Amino acid sequence: MLQPILTEWDSLCSAAKSLCRSFVPRSSLDSFFEPRSVAVVGASSTPGKPGRTVIENLIANGFKGRILPVNPRGGKICGFPVSKTIEELPSGIQMGIVMLPAAQTPAAIQECAERGISSVVLAAGGFAEVDHAGEDLQAELKEVIRKTGVRVLGPNTAGHISTPDRFTSSFFPLGKIPNGPISYIAQTGNFTGAMMRSIMSGEHYGVARCIGLGNAVDIDEADVLEFLADDPKTKSIFIYLESLHRPQTFLKIARKVTRTKPVVMLKGGATEGGAKAAMSHTASLGSDDNVLDGALKQAGVVRIDEFTYLFTAAKAAAMMPIPAGNRVGFVSPSGAFIVHISDICHQRTDLVFSKIAAATQKRLEDISPPFINISNPVDVFPSATVNGMEFAWREAMTALLKDPNVDAVVAILILADELGEMKLDFILDLKRRFPEKPIYISFSGDENSNAAAKSFLEPKGVPTFPRIEDPFKVLDILVQCRKSLA
Amino acid sequence: MLQPILTEWDSLCSAAKSLCRSFVPRSSLDSFFEPRSVAVVGASSTPGKPGRTVIENLIANGFKGRILPVNPRGGKICGFPVSKTIEELPSGIQMGIVMLPAAQTPAAIQECAERGISSVVLAAGGFAEVDHAGEDLQAELKEVIRKTGVRVLGPNTAGHISTPDRFTSSFFPLGKIPNGPISYIAQTGNFTGAMMRSIMSGEHYGVARCIGLGNAVDIDEADVLEFLADDPKTKSIFIYLESLHRPQTFLKIARKVTRTKPVVMLKGGATEGGAKAAMSHTASLGSDDNVLDGALKQAGVVRIDEFTYLFTAAKAAAMMPIPAGNRVGFVSPSGAFIVHISDICHQRTDLVFSKIAAATQKRLEDISPPFINISNPVDVFPSATVNGMEFAWREAMTALLKDPNVDAVVAILILADELGEMKLDFILDLKRRFPEKPIYISFSGDENSNAAAKSFLEPKGVPTFPRIEDPFKVLDILVQCRKSLA
Repeated sequence: MLQPILTEWDSLCSAAKSLCRSFVPRSSLDSFFEPRSVAVVGASSTPGKPGRTVIENLIANGFKGRILPVNPRGGKICGFPVSKTIEELPSGIQMGIVMLPAAQTPAAIQECAERGISSVVLAAGGFAEVDHAGEDLQAELKEVIRKTGVRVLGPNTAGHISTPDRFTSSFFPLGKIPNGPISYIAQTGNFTGAMMRSIMSGEHYGVARCIGLGNAVDIDEADVLEFLADDPKTKSIFIYLESLHRPQTFLKIARKVTRTKPVVMLKGGATEGGAKAAMSHTASLGSDDNVLDGALKQAGVVRIDEFTYLFTAAKAAAMMPIPAGNRVGFVSPSGAFIVHISDICHQRTDLVFSKIAAATQKRLEDISPPFINISNPVDVFPSATVNGMEFAWREAMTALLKDPNVDAVVAILILADELGEMKLDFILDLKRRFPEKPIYISFSGDENSNAAAKSFLEPKGVPTFPRIEDPFKVLDILVQCRKSLA
Repeated sequence: MLQPILTEWDSLCSAAKSLCRSFVPRSSLDSFFEPRSVAVVGASSTPGKPGRTVIENLIANGFKGRILPVNPRGGKICGFPVSKTIEELPSGIQMGIVMLPAAQTPAAIQECAERGISSVVLAAGGFAEVDHAGEDLQAELKEVIRKTGVRVLGPNTAGHISTPDRFTSSFFPLGKIPNGPISYIAQTGNFTGAMMRSIMSGEHYGVARCIGLGNAVDIDEADVLEFLADDPKTKSIFIYLESLHRPQTFLKIARKVTRTKPVVMLKGGATEGGAKAAMSHTASLGSDDNVLDGALKQAGVVRIDEFTYLFTAAKAAAMMPIPAGNRVGFVSPSGAFIVHISDICHQRTDLVFSKIAAATQKRLEDISPPFINISNPVDVFPSATVNGMEFAWREAMTALLKDPNVDAVVAILILADELGEMKLDFILDLKRRFPEKPIYISFSGDENSNAAAKSFLEPKGVPTFPRIEDPFKVLDILVQCRKSLA
């Protein structure tokens, strides 16, 4: 039932694109992610201007290749000699970042092609997402791309990031971007701007590749997914899309890649209101949402429904193994949390609280006061009042991690200066001892203590989730991913 | 259809309780919230012990009444002379906080009654929530309560809080508790412990009354709701319950109170798994969840499904007016947020993005670059690139707040040192100018800048929500509350 609709959709959406591609051999995306040289067309010497920030970002990330600014005024920018025109550039340059106003971009692409630059990032907005004049301009752009065979990322993107190769085309002030196993594909330019700034300042995980597709006149989500599928630096893929330009191709690639890497996707424009908003954002129309939903599921892509999960689930995937199954051990400091989380897990997730082994049961009973009925989830506070907090949490978590019936352990710590310091080194020790099982930490109590625990644990690879619901929501997302992993 | 089930339930659950009450006249709850004197039975001189912490909390909150510790060793605790027995206490004491082991509590209640103390907070756990011996003890406790007429809060509670009267029976180290218009009823003792610590350290709103019901052998949610209904210090009521002891009475009171005060409730034990967990937490059995769901809706109680909303929605209710309707104006720095939030609002809330008035439309067009299609939600970034960030956000928010078609305004700020400072005083000005319309703030960008903005705005009464989904979820909860308000 799905195939005909998708086929039709695919052919409708990408007819022009496929046509173009039949004439000119296209370069692979490799040169986007590991270029040896980059021209910045529209470079600026003025601090704060995008045409300067992009160069500062390259320097901050230690880009090893050549940086060649282009600006009619000439001179030097950030110490690099400036070419006055694209024509003046030396030959052999792989990548161009074009920071010109929209109207000048078709000509710039043409000139890049003539100078042998076959990969271009196009920053400007003002195309099909704004008005009819923009639509005409976008058509002109497509025609240049067709004729020249230049590969173009954008327009209407804040650029892309490739930390293994110390490269970025982002013109948002980022500084050094942390390297890690997560790659993002986003049909909004902003993902390599304020969003990346948010990750860098609030989280402790890093990215491999991060691509803002923008209007995707040439390079689309299927192209990028194909690149990431074979990218050894990418372990998990997180996607924000407002449309699928070539759904059938995308799903075909997805079916393959989800066997080796988790692929998690938020699809904007799932509702009529959202779709209307998407039209004026990236000039894109999503396909029928129910059809898409089923097709993504079949392809092993795990669909999420909140923007925030693009970061919380990515953190977990970056720091911990993907859980082997859905059986959770839960160490809670409060009966109310057990009641509430049981409801959440039952209503909204595939998670189950494992039936624990006899040895686990015995150990949990040993560390608890005699009058307490212990099971999983473990209400650990009675044990803490008798044995101290560190002992109680450590021994309960250890017992659950040892249990062959447990795939992952979530612990809510209760931290406050007034309760005395709780040393958390034991959690790092458990991470070392049980490398196959995810350990997620949440908190109850004093915010400053929670923040300190996050700052201690996360740089050492243990993810924390300040809200008690989050570790379970995230675990559920990754349990869904597990189902398609070979 | 609902009535017979609830009637039966009510009578089954509270048969014993109703019986007891027919013999002895019961004191009102007033003495729990504004006692002029309090005996602490099981007071301790050892720092860190609950029997000392409770006295330190009373001192920290500036309790104006008498504090009378009771401990067989006598002497002084925190400067107060200690009575060796309850019998030795002077007469005329209104309230007793009993911090003894479970087995000793029935006798202590008896002695309190004999000494004329008619209101008791019972801290000990170890009753029906643990085992059969505990059930027997709880039965004994009930019998003493029946015979003496003493009103008892607990057992298995961390106490209660009454900031307008500078009183608390909490034995969790809290210090001075901030005063505010929110009251909590929670069937978990911990709400006046670690949870309150979490609010105090992470949020900028205060509470009026906060009551941990624990096992609710005597005082139950209906009693407390009745007190809060007439309490001029309580503007909004937030509830966590695992069971309704007297659903019919509770719903009858709720129907009345929801006409003047928002009542928001999380019901733990909504699923089979959760209900089983509730049994071992507070020895309580919830009624059929679907029946309850309908009955709560009829009574105007807004049911939520995440623990976190007990704090995010409370913050909004404490700082801002309840929205007059569901028409939202949204100022966004990113098209992707507009797309995603449109989906969320459409799928999960009753919110609509207002069709704005012609004057609003014109003003928004005036401040935006000519090529931009402006509507609500407002993509404000194009205006910011032309006019600067402060101007763009201020004017867009002002236009929306002025619009008679807009009931509330949500703005996502984009903050980062690298983008230059954005002065936020204009938001305080808008709060003053439009006191009838809620303004909620969220963030994109640098976490440190977001935290600084939160610290600036919230103490001045503008709530912030770091996750972009939250202001909309919270607004929807309060829009539901509005429906029953007279």
